[in-house]
Amino acid sequence: MAYYRSKPTPGRHFLQIPGPTNVPDRVLRAIDNPTMDHRGPDFGRMAKALLEKLRLVFQTRGPVVIYPASGTGAWEAALTNTLSPGDRVLMCETGWFATLWKEMAERLGLVPEFIGTDWRRGADVAAIEARLRDDRGHLVKAVCVVHNETSTGCTSRIDEVRRALDAARHPALLMVDTISSLASMDYRHDEWGVDVTVAGSQKGLMLPPGLSFNAVSEKALRASETARLPRSFWDWKAMLAANATGYFPYTPATNLLYGLDAALDLLLEEGLPNVFARHDRHAEATRRAVRAWGLETQCADPRHHSSSLTAVRVPEGHSADALRAVILERFNMSLGNGLGQLRDRVFRIGHLGDLGDLQLMGTLSGVEMGLRAAGVPHRPGGVQAALEFLSGNA
Amino acid sequence: MAYYRSKPTPGRHFLQIPGPTNVPDRVLRAIDNPTMDHRGPDFGRMAKALLEKLRLVFQTRGPVVIYPASGTGAWEAALTNTLSPGDRVLMCETGWFATLWKEMAERLGLVPEFIGTDWRRGADVAAIEARLRDDRGHLVKAVCVVHNETSTGCTSRIDEVRRALDAARHPALLMVDTISSLASMDYRHDEWGVDVTVAGSQKGLMLPPGLSFNAVSEKALRASETARLPRSFWDWKAMLAANATGYFPYTPATNLLYGLDAALDLLLEEGLPNVFARHDRHAEATRRAVRAWGLETQCADPRHHSSSLTAVRVPEGHSADALRAVILERFNMSLGNGLGQLRDRVFRIGHLGDLGDLQLMGTLSGVEMGLRAAGVPHRPGGVQAALEFLSGNA
Amino acid sequence: MAYYRSKPTPGRHFLQIPGPTNVPDRVLRAIDNPTMDHRGPDFGRMAKALLEKLRLVFQTRGPVVIYPASGTGAWEAALTNTLSPGDRVLMCETGWFATLWKEMAERLGLVPEFIGTDWRRGADVAAIEARLRDDRGHLVKAVCVVHNETSTGCTSRIDEVRRALDAARHPALLMVDTISSLASMDYRHDEWGVDVTVAGSQKGLMLPPGLSFNAVSEKALRASETARLPRSFWDWKAMLAANATGYFPYTPATNLLYGLDAALDLLLEEGLPNVFARHDRHAEATRRAVRAWGLETQCADPRHHSSSLTAVRVPEGHSADALRAVILERFNMSLGNGLGQLRDRVFRIGHLGDLGDLQLMGTLSGVEMGLRAAGVPHRPGGVQAALEFLSGNA
Amino acid sequence: MAYYRSKPTPGRHFLQIPGPTNVPDRVLRAIDNPTMDHRGPDFGRMAKALLEKLRLVFQTRGPVVIYPASGTGAWEAALTNTLSPGDRVLMCETGWFATLWKEMAERLGLVPEFIGTDWRRGADVAAIEARLRDDRGHLVKAVCVVHNETSTGCTSRIDEVRRALDAARHPALLMVDTISSLASMDYRHDEWGVDVTVAGSQKGLMLPPGLSFNAVSEKALRASETARLPRSFWDWKAMLAANATGYFPYTPATNLLYGLDAALDLLLEEGLPNVFARHDRHAEATRRAVRAWGLETQCADPRHHSSSLTAVRVPEGHSADALRAVILERFNMSLGNGLGQLRDRVFRIGHLGDLGDLQLMGTLSGVEMGLRAAGVPHRPGGVQAALEFLSGNA
Repeated sequence: MAYYRSKPTPGRHFLQIPGPTNVPDRVLRAIDNPTMDHRGPDFGRMAKALLEKLRLVFQTRGPVVIYPASGTGAWEAALTNTLSPGDRVLMCETGWFATLWKEMAERLGLVPEFIGTDWRRGADVAAIEARLRDDRGHLVKAVCVVHNETSTGCTSRIDEVRRALDAARHPALLMVDTISSLASMDYRHDEWGVDVTVAGSQKGLMLPPGLSFNAVSEKALRASETARLPRSFWDWKAMLAANATGYFPYTPATNLLYGLDAALDLLLEEGLPNVFARHDRHAEATRRAVRAWGLETQCADPRHHSSSLTAVRVPEGHSADALRAVILERFNMSLGNGLGQLRDRVFRIGHLGDLGDLQLMGTLSGVEMGLRAAGVPHRPGGVQAALEFLSGNA
Repeated sequence: MAYYRSKPTPGRHFLQIPGPTNVPDRVLRAIDNPTMDHRGPDFGRMAKALLEKLRLVFQTRGPVVIYPASGTGAWEAALTNTLSPGDRVLMCETGWFATLWKEMAERLGLVPEFIGTDWRRGADVAAIEARLRDDRGHLVKAVCVVHNETSTGCTSRIDEVRRALDAARHPALLMVDTISSLASMDYRHDEWGVDVTVAGSQKGLMLPPGLSFNAVSEKALRASETARLPRSFWDWKAMLAANATGYFPYTPATNLLYGLDAALDLLLEEGLPNVFARHDRHAEATRRAVRAWGLETQCADPRHHSSSLTAVRVPEGHSADALRAVILERFNMSLGNGLGQLRDRVFRIGHLGDLGDLQLMGTLSGVEMGLRAAGVPHRPGGVQAALEFLSGNA
Repeated sequence: MAYYRSKPTPGRHFLQIPGPTNVPDRVLRAIDNPTMDHRGPDFGRMAKALLEKLRLVFQTRGPVVIYPASGTGAWEAALTNTLSPGDRVLMCETGWFATLWKEMAERLGLVPEFIGTDWRRGADVAAIEARLRDDRGHLVKAVCVVHNETSTGCTSRIDEVRRALDAARHPALLMVDTISSLASMDYRHDEWGVDVTVAGSQKGLMLPPGLSFNAVSEKALRASETARLPRSFWDWKAMLAANATGYFPYTPATNLLYGLDAALDLLLEEGLPNVFARHDRHAEATRRAVRAWGLETQCADPRHHSSSLTAVRVPEGHSADALRAVILERFNMSLGNGLGQLRDRVFRIGHLGDLGDLQLMGTLSGVEMGLRAAGVPHRPGGVQAALEFLSGNA
Repeated sequence: MAYYRSKPTPGRHFLQIPGPTNVPDRVLRAIDNPTMDHRGPDFGRMAKALLEKLRLVFQTRGPVVIYPASGTGAWEAALTNTLSPGDRVLMCETGWFATLWKEMAERLGLVPEFIGTDWRRGADVAAIEARLRDDRGHLVKAVCVVHNETSTGCTSRIDEVRRALDAARHPALLMVDTISSLASMDYRHDEWGVDVTVAGSQKGLMLPPGLSFNAVSEKALRASETARLPRSFWDWKAMLAANATGYFPYTPATNLLYGLDAALDLLLEEGLPNVFARHDRHAEATRRAVRAWGLETQCADPRHHSSSLTAVRVPEGHSADALRAVILERFNMSLGNGLGQLRDRVFRIGHLGDLGDLQLMGTLSGVEMGLRAAGVPHRPGGVQAALEFLSGNA
């Protein structure tokens, strides 16, 4: 029964939206330590060590900038640090969040081109390559892709996008949003030649919202020297200068940094490969449940299934939001809603962050009980299917 | 991943032993407030209000003594405050904890008579009545019964025991251990004419261990005036005198009292009838799962099933402890072990305290996955059976 | 001994920098509640109530925007929502933070004019008025003042600035930074006709850093409709639209909002007039100690003394930073450092936020012991002087 | 402003009673971890390591028993494990707590002899030796001394008591109450030949109340084999058997054990000699303040001054309780009250546990401001005297 619940709800709330995720006690207990002097020696020591550990999660040897701001801010930082008014950027309409990023680019005075999909798969790599080959004058300054589209549960193949840029011999920057994939799914900033990776705290990093990140390549840093979009809060330069000694150019979100420190320890103690395998396994169990129920995942391409969330389509004539309301009311579980064109058509199961097998089973049980309680046509047995998969693979 | 776990274990630990139970965040957040002056005015105000609320849970208008000690101490308090060396007490061998209480009585210099059972049902009320009728000289000074035997999952009918005493017109005190039933199952100190109710903090009261309780009748208070067992720490007299103004004769466990205050609020906000109905429902779901697996509950009498835990027998030739070890290792869940003659023969599922439907489904999933992983013969489908029951009754 | 201290330091750390301030336990205990669904019904209820309470602290009936970002961001938000590239803004060089805000304006493509001071008093109101009277063409689009300059402990008289604008009949927007004054010193957004008030969480609001605020007048809202600085993250429009029902256009910093809710309750329970009187009293006690030590406050104008911090000048030939290092090392207290031209020349005592008389006495004792330990010339007796003042006025 | 305060009180409460003491955040944050299975493997590992560390604090190589009960219980444990009905025990009336222990002995059926003092010094060692030399028949089975009498601030010289027993060649057991000295003042169970050391969690161990301890010598263990006082909850035998593998015979106070683990780490990181020196220094500073105020300490023998608390006598015709009420109301600090014959005649300043110099200065400032506010005759300057002492010795 949580403090901010409006009615008595025995047992823990199941927060199974695709982020914010369930924050581990060890992280909450770090966050609630007394705030310290962000200009004192202990802070510097903590932050320097933290910035080192953080690189491991991005799989980069380069710098990672931490903003005391939520994830949307890191989108803005990626664009304003590297681009100039009127610059052309190639973006991929993989879903709702890709669309928001594109709208942001427009508001900032950039000129996005938007390569469509049916919102049921990742970015269209062939189309990207084709467009870049066409762009003989290299007017396109950046290619922006959402690694894991949180609104659809479809993953884009960043390795393939990289190969597309290379094949087209195009110098555009590659910017990738990993807000709902980082620290849940394998992601390789350096190996995949990404120039700016955008991330947030409240998903795989298992923190409350309030921190966001830019991992930055050498090439992106060079671009920032001539980029002319106005920027101050988001500016990398002062950040990187101050970070060198473990400090920040303006007040950092100290207590969330305590939590980040604890969360990174948790991830590194488990081991990133184990973290990724766990998410893959839970995603597969979830898809087996969905299939057993006779329902359809929003993601239609098996190569693009997300390991951090599964969006499930409800049958025509039924309301995903009504289903979610029943599940919240009767089973004390929050699921993600459909966004944009998927409004009321899908519900989204988050299975990322600090999650064990039994919590996943509780989650899937809540969905199956909810389908039944809300009168959504389905076959029983999804929970049983997931259980069989998991016990064969624990 | 809990702080004191020796290896990384993503997700929350499922603490499904029959107590200590999962402590709600609101209670943990109360306990970690700074300790206050237990002789100051704010403390007195808090404690007076607390002692009032506490009576509601015992369903009594009489006093409830709070010890800064764990539950075993409250057994000792019940005996030493009311009895004298050599006194005869009638006790009921319902299982391991009843046996421990009887051994305590012996160590304290009392003379227990022990009415046996096969550890598969509650106390034998007919035998109690018969023994009391035989006791023309009223040598038996107290009848001691465990309301909910935590080692077997069998409940004794306290209302019937009361009627047995009345039918035999016997003046013995009635003492009842409600350690694993209070605040989970309906229990009526006043209506059932109980003289001393023994309880602890770490089960239905949803606190960590460290507090224990005696609810005391007028008759028990009178008995304490002549009782000659030596006592000091446990003595009711100084307690009740100090409690009248909200204080304690020696340092109380202040921070656990903060937690008790929060826990009582949670229970009263939910409403005791709802709390009991929730436990009944979860117990029924659990038994349906057990039946679907083709396993047997330790409790063999349907009138005596506990609503706070279910002890499950493993088939001959299989080890309950090996099963529990697999479940702990692979699914991060603690179940209760078999005690005494049930060692390695049963595992015990705690479904009491702060528990919602989805946590119960996670729990039962862990059991079914464990049975499979440990190679314990069973039919699949227990989880599905529980799910069907719960969704029809949410 | 704090978790992130590098060596054992018994007792609580005294965090007496002028922010971040000591976060009350009740706020820390709110922040460490489990993160909730920011799109669910409970969140909306909480946020709507929160936004109402927040207005009381700004003394406004208009909207207050909450950013999931630290205070510097709210500066940027104030400028980008209301101004266009090349706009002229009149800013007041009251110290280091005013200078940073001015540099931000430049980086964003604005044209600041900077009215100087000797960093020992608040903004020069006569000069503002004179400049505005000169500006017949109303080229100046905004006047920006720091209410309480955290680098010097000098307060600017916002009421007088307002009168200056009125006297000059100038339509410029009035923007005020209250980062280190809000909820510590009397501040009246509506009455003083401020158009944008900038604030942060980590000072008088007693929260960790990570939230910032814009209180916005009707006039500022109208200005935002034509303002052409590019903006997206900071845009008021989407914020205000979503806030109407208790939601946010992108993920809010949920757990810091829990803390804000608790902090607002604390402030309103104490009563804002009591909060302000407490800060005034502590500031006066501090100044009496400084005077008794024979030292000088950085603020040279008695009408401009800050009630939230006191910057103290060290005698020529002595190092404020060496003094601070001794105090940190030997007495476990953090004081604020000198910034910009005051580097190593002043130390700053924060006496804002959640502070009682005895903590202030501990703070001043730490300063006096530090002066002695570091060999900084002074007369003893500052602590005694403060004590006498406080006991006459408790 | 604490959660359980009845009115808004900005700043932290100063809990300067001589225990319970201010619990460090790191300990509170340990205590609020989820309760774990006390029969599982992680618990056993934790408890085994904990029991090892605990010995260091008692300066013993023998066993230390931990009770899930507050300190008074450990008195009872010491007596009931080693003595038989009618046994004669030599006790020393050093103050209120020594008197309570003696009354407990009577209630348990023992026959205490009580060697008096004027409550202004430690135990009368010469009288102990004389009495033991007289006791040719060795009827005295135990000598019981309170190391640090919390009601008076007088310490008894345990090393001298040991020598008295040795000089008298008397085989009585030596039992020592260290409730308010352990982990604050040097105490050597083995070196001083103590047989049972009694301790509690809520003083120098910096925990909330709820745990208590018996350190047990070989000789005491042998005595327990024949001792005939009835006992069960307090019985060492089952405890020591279970402790061997890291477990307990009945449910331990798990969460307080988490806290104990953290508190022991804090003490050992600081180093016991540093802990003792810190307490000695704070006690000396306090006495200098008392002297400067022209007041008198209750302890009249300089060899017996306590380093963990100072009891201060108020001038005739003035009320210590009225003074304490003023200090609580106006300065948010709790001081200890006078007990027994010292009721309303003394106030007690606790300076033990997790305390730094600045908290002590805040404490003494609160006393001096309170003396002034309550109109208790005194000279000003106590705070200044303490400050001078501390800055010379930081």
